[in-house]
Amino acid sequence: MREGDLLGYMDECRELVVAEIRDILPKADRYRPVLYDLILDYPLREAKAIRPSLCVATCRALGGRMESVLRSAAVLEFYHNAFLVHDDVEDGSEFRRDAPTLHRTHGVPIAVNVGDAMLALALEPLLDNMASLGLGKAIRILHLVGRMARETAEGQALELGWIRTREWDLTDTDYLRMVYKKTSWYTFVAPMLAGAIVAGAEPACLVALRKFAVSLGLAFQIQDDVLNLTADRTHYGKEIGGDLWEGKHTLILLHALRSASPSERRRAHAILAKPRPTSPAVTDDGDLVASTERLARLVDELRRAGDVTARGHTALRRAVRRTDRDTGCKTDADIAVLRALIAKHRSIEAAKAVARRWAALAHARLDALHGWLGRSVHREFLEALVDFVVERSR
Amino acid sequence: MREGDLLGYMDECRELVVAEIRDILPKADRYRPVLYDLILDYPLREAKAIRPSLCVATCRALGGRMESVLRSAAVLEFYHNAFLVHDDVEDGSEFRRDAPTLHRTHGVPIAVNVGDAMLALALEPLLDNMASLGLGKAIRILHLVGRMARETAEGQALELGWIRTREWDLTDTDYLRMVYKKTSWYTFVAPMLAGAIVAGAEPACLVALRKFAVSLGLAFQIQDDVLNLTADRTHYGKEIGGDLWEGKHTLILLHALRSASPSERRRAHAILAKPRPTSPAVTDDGDLVASTERLARLVDELRRAGDVTARGHTALRRAVRRTDRDTGCKTDADIAVLRALIAKHRSIEAAKAVARRWAALAHARLDALHGWLGRSVHREFLEALVDFVVERSR
Repeated sequence: MREGDLLGYMDECRELVVAEIRDILPKADRYRPVLYDLILDYPLREAKAIRPSLCVATCRALGGRMESVLRSAAVLEFYHNAFLVHDDVEDGSEFRRDAPTLHRTHGVPIAVNVGDAMLALALEPLLDNMASLGLGKAIRILHLVGRMARETAEGQALELGWIRTREWDLTDTDYLRMVYKKTSWYTFVAPMLAGAIVAGAEPACLVALRKFAVSLGLAFQIQDDVLNLTADRTHYGKEIGGDLWEGKHTLILLHALRSASPSERRRAHAILAKPRPTSPAVTDDGDLVASTERLARLVDELRRAGDVTARGHTALRRAVRRTDRDTGCKTDADIAVLRALIAKHRSIEAAKAVARRWAALAHARLDALHGWLGRSVHREFLEALVDFVVERSR
Repeated sequence: MREGDLLGYMDECRELVVAEIRDILPKADRYRPVLYDLILDYPLREAKAIRPSLCVATCRALGGRMESVLRSAAVLEFYHNAFLVHDDVEDGSEFRRDAPTLHRTHGVPIAVNVGDAMLALALEPLLDNMASLGLGKAIRILHLVGRMARETAEGQALELGWIRTREWDLTDTDYLRMVYKKTSWYTFVAPMLAGAIVAGAEPACLVALRKFAVSLGLAFQIQDDVLNLTADRTHYGKEIGGDLWEGKHTLILLHALRSASPSERRRAHAILAKPRPTSPAVTDDGDLVASTERLARLVDELRRAGDVTARGHTALRRAVRRTDRDTGCKTDADIAVLRALIAKHRSIEAAKAVARRWAALAHARLDALHGWLGRSVHREFLEALVDFVVERSR
């Protein structure tokens, strides 16, 4: 399957799942403007739709029916979009998929509640599965979603804990365990197993699918980390280099730190220990200028114009610096140091090689599934996806 | 039952449910410090434990067993504490139950993730109910929790929407609908019905219990609004007058606005349209002083000392004011105006009268349940609780 067909397949799945989400949302007019329209905001934005596509493709490749799987695929999208809304609040992100984030448009309280509401609304459709799929399948999907949510929270907790405690004494295995939970389970294992359960797959098939999904997820995340540093700004939806600013733990950075000399490593640790600058405030004039920066400039100008004495200037500059919550934050020069370290030790190439090894393992694990997956466009999609996750530029 | 016994009953229920929560939490050491210890933080703080007590008392009053109901009671506490953690992030609260809020101690990202993890962990114990209670009861509790989560999110969305759009053209019915969802369903209906389902109550009994729970919830919330304005700071866990600062929609304020003259009303609307001042920052010196306030004071002092010219003073004060995100926020004088309006129109007394009417209705609805609820300490607890919710001082 060519990349164009692969993207077309994902687009179709996305449209079907968005329609299903609309169908699931309560219709009460009173709550539409304050809740249900906001819940639809992120799902309606352009996205790759990897999770719905994996869920649909696995179900169909195993002989399951499209109508049977859409509700579960939609529930996984509820979870995904709830986490996106909350992640944007956590990170103070300004844009998501080329539009302002929900909390920037509607404020943090409404955004947090929208995320909670999406998590709340995930439960009832999973109970509806009891009528449409039968009790056994419905209960197995409920267990699956419960496990997924727990794995995701644990993976996220590991990563946030490392950032918080500035823990860099980590092995590749630590990183892979975190990604197994945060990415493999959440984006690959849960959608594929949900599709397989709907299709009535036997236990041995579920085990083989899980192994395939885990390796595919690891390859996907490592390539995601690579793209975060190397992608073309026009294609990549997120901020280039954002992982370095946030001090995220990637295979790339772990490789660079491990390869570095003791003095290089000390310098990198010092940089990584600094917080990210808070985002600049938009002034009344519409300028994007940090207010403290503007104040500091004004104080300097007044000093030059003779409106402030040397003593006054010192006191004001000290006060402005104390007001500046950005003091001691990472700078562009800091990020350049980290990038130079990564380039020197060819850490991106090292990470790419690891991603390719996981993708090769995914191919082998998919081949092992051929006894269960007959020839179909859906199996072709899964095959093409393995190459796509490590070759993609967005 | 005397108030001391009532508080003792609630304390016992709280301890049993906290033990159950400990039992539910995964034991993996790796995730304890970054996740599971943080999940336990709020549940371990002193609280009234109304929800667990209602759940246990209803189950026991109907002849159900303590061991059968604890898991469901614990799940409702997961939901409750998840919402508390998220509410504190939304409101930027500094303290919860006399200790710093989770996001203040561990940062917003970790706090939002802890809330999400608690919502995630609610699912698996509800599925465990299938083995211990049987399929029918377990599925009914799952539906109940799904409905509760949706009602809560809708109630919260209504209230946040009113605050966001500065909507004050509301009737008492609008307020009661919001409270029905935000308080009655969440704090009273769901815990009581969960207890009743575990005890195997018949449908007519569930309907009668729901009616009782709804009226009790309305009485409870109106008294909560009253306490927010009148409580003794040492007993009340929250900020006195916080509802006025946040511009929350209460029966009290709606009554005052409705009773006000057109000019009083215009003035009150103008005050309510102003945002709440952002909380003061803690300075390096440990002082709780808003940084802009400190800067403004410094500029004034330097002017008096002759270190800044009149021209420089004007420019600096304008810049500091522009930096101050608190500009145009509510002031103490504003809150005093609102309090005076409430006092003039005796709006607290009016709200108290409404709370007493709902409590009287709750008593009548509880009497109607006597055919199902035999004489027991648990029924006595429910009876005493009706008086407690409208007479309590905390």
